[in-house]
Amino acid sequence: MLKEYIRRKAALIDQSLDELLPSQDTYPPVIYEAMRYSIFAGGKRLRPVLLMAAADAAGGNGETFRHVACGLEMIHTYSLIHDDLPAMDNDDYRRGKLTNHKVYGEGMAVLAGDGLLTAAFEVMLDQPGVDPAVLVRVVREIALAAGPRGMVGGQAVDLISEGRAIDGKTLTFMHRAKTGAMFRASIRAGALLAGASEEQLAALTEYAEQFGLAFQITDDILDVTGTQEKIGKPVGSDVRNQKVTYVTLYSILAARQLARESVDKALSELEGFGGEAEILRELVKYLLSRDS
Amino acid sequence: MLKEYIRRKAALIDQSLDELLPSQDTYPPVIYEAMRYSIFAGGKRLRPVLLMAAADAAGGNGETFRHVACGLEMIHTYSLIHDDLPAMDNDDYRRGKLTNHKVYGEGMAVLAGDGLLTAAFEVMLDQPGVDPAVLVRVVREIALAAGPRGMVGGQAVDLISEGRAIDGKTLTFMHRAKTGAMFRASIRAGALLAGASEEQLAALTEYAEQFGLAFQITDDILDVTGTQEKIGKPVGSDVRNQKVTYVTLYSILAARQLARESVDKALSELEGFGGEAEILRELVKYLLSRDS
Repeated sequence: MLKEYIRRKAALIDQSLDELLPSQDTYPPVIYEAMRYSIFAGGKRLRPVLLMAAADAAGGNGETFRHVACGLEMIHTYSLIHDDLPAMDNDDYRRGKLTNHKVYGEGMAVLAGDGLLTAAFEVMLDQPGVDPAVLVRVVREIALAAGPRGMVGGQAVDLISEGRAIDGKTLTFMHRAKTGAMFRASIRAGALLAGASEEQLAALTEYAEQFGLAFQITDDILDVTGTQEKIGKPVGSDVRNQKVTYVTLYSILAARQLARESVDKALSELEGFGGEAEILRELVKYLLSRDS
Repeated sequence: MLKEYIRRKAALIDQSLDELLPSQDTYPPVIYEAMRYSIFAGGKRLRPVLLMAAADAAGGNGETFRHVACGLEMIHTYSLIHDDLPAMDNDDYRRGKLTNHKVYGEGMAVLAGDGLLTAAFEVMLDQPGVDPAVLVRVVREIALAAGPRGMVGGQAVDLISEGRAIDGKTLTFMHRAKTGAMFRASIRAGALLAGASEEQLAALTEYAEQFGLAFQITDDILDVTGTQEKIGKPVGSDVRNQKVTYVTLYSILAARQLARESVDKALSELEGFGGEAEILRELVKYLLSRDS
């Protein structure tokens, strides 16, 4: 059921991204080519799927909100392009393909990221069928989550922490900001767009916090136990880059235990929901068995 | 009158930016320090001033819209930070001060730009006292102007054109996208926020097109005839970087004539306005005598 749901939603997102991003026939072609290269480089579309699943859980129809969902994916993709730059993580490969700057050069990769980030706001603010006051609130929350108080702030901590000893508190801040904030915004966006009650919104927000934590811990575990074929990048890059992770700070066993606890907390938040939240339940359970 | 107007509005914008951007006491301090370094590096606040002057001309009170006005300045500043990067123009100085990456390093400069761009949308969407439907339209127009169909697209053409012969048509596209689109969005934002009539909006839009053109031509002239003290960067950088400009493509004399024609057209668009558009008239006339 989860697999089929993800397959269907991801196909809708891919099709929507293709419609919403200008084609490579637009002048100047190179910037659209560079943006499209990374957008269609095989992402799992997890943030759009979370938005849609949260909207479904709150009693709405997640597929209605594909503009905002596509914006989330564009913001995620921009962050990967900039993160891979030589001045940042200096990665040559991402998901088994050359990174943006290896194909288009550093300058164009900076611009492709800037273009995706900016276009994301244009696309989200073009979402039809939503009360403008709700749309303003949702897009503002997404900007907050993506900006210096969220993702960009987490990246900054990541950048200044490389090769340094950091404590558990800093690690938690970094991940909450770097990936957690956007998961939280994706889920809250779905809930708000679907007209969730205050009670539903609070439960889904706490679910989102735990989802983000479990995602990051299992991501750190995968960097040690995964295979290059599955995760699409060299295994052990965190260790080589002297990055502090949940695995280097604790142990694989302790990290697995932490991940399980987060998943249990996330599930308990959904107890007040019925079958319409089943996808959210499966999504967070899936994190414990992910191999990519 | 113009000087005093600009002084007053720029002071308001500086104060608002200081309020709206988190302080350097926020964790992690380095990203806020880097963002603030460039925001307070002595910009003329031209885009916020244009927004306010256009709102005044349309019968509103420009000072009301300081959130959107600050967002414009944050977007402008992000574009300068990324434009100065080694992979782009590779400039060490901007307005007589070290560029962002020379102070904070390339990685942090990328993030400071990303942070300003993202925070701009958060700040703009927090603009009080405006009908949400109007706010959505205005911020969406600004995103369109800043993105691949506007500023980012212009930067891309600039990047691929360095050291190449380009024709007048390409030059016009590049500047219209790179700087013109944001001038246009600033002026239209002011008009729309102030509730301009369709007729007023059309006239102010055409004024904006001509303003942008005159600005770019006089900018190209300044790169040849200006002094480093006044313009804050080495004179003749366009020639050294083999950039095609209005001066290299035509001549200083012909470029001056083109600028005068644009200013005249801009003024004629304001004929239906009274004294409330006097600042817009003075602003465009000022371009012909600017020395920075």
